[in-house]
Amino acid sequence: MNQTKIKHALTVTREADFAAWYQEVISEADMAEESGVRGCMVIKPWGYGIWERIQQVMDARIKAAGVQNCYFPLFIPLSYFAKEAEHVDGFAKEMAVVTHHRLIGDGKGGLVPDPDAKLEEPLIVRPTSETVIGAAMARWVQSWRDLPLLTNQWANVVRWEMRTRMFLRTSEFLWQEGHTAHADKADAMDETLRALEMYRSFSEDVLAMPVVAGEKPENERFPGAAATYSIEAMMQDGKALQAGTSHYLGTGFAEAAGIKYQDREGTQQHCHTTSWGVSTRLIGGVIMTHGDDDGLRVPPQIAPHQVVIVPMLRDNDEDLPVIAYCRELMASLNVQRAFGDPLRAHLDLRAIKSTTKRWQWVKKGAPVIVEIGGRDVAGGNVCWLRRDRLYGEGGKVASNIEARADFVVRVAELVEEIQASLHAEATARRDANITRGVTSLDALAKHFAEGNKYPGWVELGWSRPTGAELEAVVATLKAHKLTIRNTPMDADAPQGQCIFTGKPAVETIYVARSY
Amino acid sequence: MNQTKIKHALTVTREADFAAWYQEVISEADMAEESGVRGCMVIKPWGYGIWERIQQVMDARIKAAGVQNCYFPLFIPLSYFAKEAEHVDGFAKEMAVVTHHRLIGDGKGGLVPDPDAKLEEPLIVRPTSETVIGAAMARWVQSWRDLPLLTNQWANVVRWEMRTRMFLRTSEFLWQEGHTAHADKADAMDETLRALEMYRSFSEDVLAMPVVAGEKPENERFPGAAATYSIEAMMQDGKALQAGTSHYLGTGFAEAAGIKYQDREGTQQHCHTTSWGVSTRLIGGVIMTHGDDDGLRVPPQIAPHQVVIVPMLRDNDEDLPVIAYCRELMASLNVQRAFGDPLRAHLDLRAIKSTTKRWQWVKKGAPVIVEIGGRDVAGGNVCWLRRDRLYGEGGKVASNIEARADFVVRVAELVEEIQASLHAEATARRDANITRGVTSLDALAKHFAEGNKYPGWVELGWSRPTGAELEAVVATLKAHKLTIRNTPMDADAPQGQCIFTGKPAVETIYVARSY
Repeated sequence: MNQTKIKHALTVTREADFAAWYQEVISEADMAEESGVRGCMVIKPWGYGIWERIQQVMDARIKAAGVQNCYFPLFIPLSYFAKEAEHVDGFAKEMAVVTHHRLIGDGKGGLVPDPDAKLEEPLIVRPTSETVIGAAMARWVQSWRDLPLLTNQWANVVRWEMRTRMFLRTSEFLWQEGHTAHADKADAMDETLRALEMYRSFSEDVLAMPVVAGEKPENERFPGAAATYSIEAMMQDGKALQAGTSHYLGTGFAEAAGIKYQDREGTQQHCHTTSWGVSTRLIGGVIMTHGDDDGLRVPPQIAPHQVVIVPMLRDNDEDLPVIAYCRELMASLNVQRAFGDPLRAHLDLRAIKSTTKRWQWVKKGAPVIVEIGGRDVAGGNVCWLRRDRLYGEGGKVASNIEARADFVVRVAELVEEIQASLHAEATARRDANITRGVTSLDALAKHFAEGNKYPGWVELGWSRPTGAELEAVVATLKAHKLTIRNTPMDADAPQGQCIFTGKPAVETIYVARSY
Repeated sequence: MNQTKIKHALTVTREADFAAWYQEVISEADMAEESGVRGCMVIKPWGYGIWERIQQVMDARIKAAGVQNCYFPLFIPLSYFAKEAEHVDGFAKEMAVVTHHRLIGDGKGGLVPDPDAKLEEPLIVRPTSETVIGAAMARWVQSWRDLPLLTNQWANVVRWEMRTRMFLRTSEFLWQEGHTAHADKADAMDETLRALEMYRSFSEDVLAMPVVAGEKPENERFPGAAATYSIEAMMQDGKALQAGTSHYLGTGFAEAAGIKYQDREGTQQHCHTTSWGVSTRLIGGVIMTHGDDDGLRVPPQIAPHQVVIVPMLRDNDEDLPVIAYCRELMASLNVQRAFGDPLRAHLDLRAIKSTTKRWQWVKKGAPVIVEIGGRDVAGGNVCWLRRDRLYGEGGKVASNIEARADFVVRVAELVEEIQASLHAEATARRDANITRGVTSLDALAKHFAEGNKYPGWVELGWSRPTGAELEAVVATLKAHKLTIRNTPMDADAPQGQCIFTGKPAVETIYVARSY
């Protein structure tokens, strides 16, 4: 089988130019586009439909953990932001600042901010909500009986970015942010790790995206946090994507905001707080995990449509029975259940050519594409293909013909199999691209040198340096465009020496290029 | 029965001070609070849970109409906003203006907007998204095949408000905004009226809030619209609340944004566009429609919990069987179905006194409250009350004791009956407070004079004046703090003369005080 003979649906392959391929997938799958507003994107129905599925499944898991959704203000007064010193240092740089609340005519037919409507105190468009939620928690928490206080919000946030990339880094993005307050460190740490595990299992089970859950090194902590944990996913170019974070904030934010409670003995104590979030960045991770040279492949659990039915119409009388057959098929599919939910089938009746539709759905990555023509109707059959295995022997599109009744009965199994198969494929690729046994800085540099196009990640033991010693390690890695991703939760104790400090290794880390 | 003997759960009655009562409901039902950020509120779990239910049911109806959800930028460049002249006149006044994208230290330990990070063009925090969505539509629409284009987004918007009131008028609020583009006026008008009818039926069926759907007079049109329709609800103080709007925008926005298509004959045409929205204001309407002197009464369709179970615990060994019984009861309730969805029952196990819990749930307005003590467990019974009919003969709380099995079997019927009862009660009150037969301006003024505490709405025939003649009518009404609400869709042709112009009446209007 000569794979190079296949003419793929995209003009750029992953191998030729991964960054250009990524943009082409987003464009050809019609997921999002530049908005004309600097750094902000428009999320189109297929991209937003994926986000809605992510929200729906994640929100159910958040609620199941006893966390309650609230909504907090978009604007944060500057003074709130200045309360937590480390936090403001980490975030104060690039934020959208509201300074006026009115426009007036400039006398030349245009509009300008009204100088008489200048705010006494500028408002910051939230880059994250620890400070404003902390102020609310200070009002809500009085006694140990009020703890733990478990809140979450689904919201838009803004971090002014100079270089943006759709879904991965945009000035405005959508996310959920969990914020919790606890009586002591142990309880707050339990919550931090519960959220981390929620993100890990969500990524694996729902996004079919294998991740490593672990603790970030001290230099990569969230501004003001006592400990930051992340899930890290390997993209198809071998780079790491930080796909979610969970922070144990200690008592720093509680002290800044005055979140105090009276304990059972009557003593005033500061709460220990946490925060945790995932964003529309997950969609970028899904694209770079599952996309191929024909476009996106959406894991069925988050696919807006799991099965798309394309009728082969000829603009004549024979179309009517084909459409009727397709409608019946859709109805019989939609009463099936996959992953515990009703199956989501869609009938595409748009007035465009059926081959155009087929390739649009291939590029969008609908898990199963069904094409129905007059012959299928006559034979009581269904002609279908699975998007995750588009080509068969000889590089031809692998269509299957099956009796309609048989297809309907096993369609749920089919989409669940596609989900599992995407996960297995991504996991195998990830595992094959983790290198162990690098025992010197030179060997590390060589591994990541130009000649190695797919260096993936390197797993190392290190001595967990801190302070200036850590800064030196970070600088060394930066010279090779490398970062420490995290220390995996479940790693065995490492052996040997730390290649950075020469001291005995005490924990395992992953080193990689990253997004 | 002497109603005055009842000691209600709130300190202020509707009759004594409706505005203070409204604030107390929100506070005592723990729905929302002031955030400390000017004009912005924090929506707390009970308030947000109601919004989530509104979103869920409305979103399904929006999708069923073939409308697709997208997400558009929070920020709108000033220049976009200046394109549609009427629109900018109507909206340009009070908006949040982003002028800088960075903060720096002020040398005194504080932070200020960085003068070097001043934006070349200020960004407006969206007050509504016609302009930025219009720019996207101009990219997306090429041919008649692309029409109709039906989009919606769930988003936060900001309109700087000097006087705010929670849920009714806040600087930031949450809403959905539908935006559609069509080939011609007829199709756009169909969509405008479809959305209006969707809002009408949603308000009646889901919120149990009777509304009048109709067209707003010309002076109340959305800035730039060719026609604006609204649903208007009567609050318990007799004032009108505009609870949702749907606009036919003509071709004005399409001309400003360049939304054009090639028709079947190959000619370039401007699209006809629409927009329509409802917001968290609906929650204010629900409070003022269904609340009573004991707090909120949430219509079961949007209640986060439809049945709340309160165990009567005594902190001793007898608590265990009570809790076990309550858990079994909850499980058997949650497999019931009401309104086509699984019933939502909640077991309140918080470590506070059960009488406190009961009154908290009364104030929050949970439709059915169940209290279970040792005696109920022994007898296999359930002790329950319905929140919409809290008091029985003699002003005592009307608790019912019923065999558990019987209660479980008919609980769905019970919550559906409560929904219907709330709707019937509100409809009867609304209908009783519409006055007809006012045949002169003097009579109108007299009807709305100080002495009449509950003037409600007046239904009039008028001559549908326009321009300067309409302005005079508006000014006359304003002198009595009155506004024209709308012209109902289904009204009979009026008889007699217009009390404003003396001309023959041609259509019916409602005149009222309003929020």
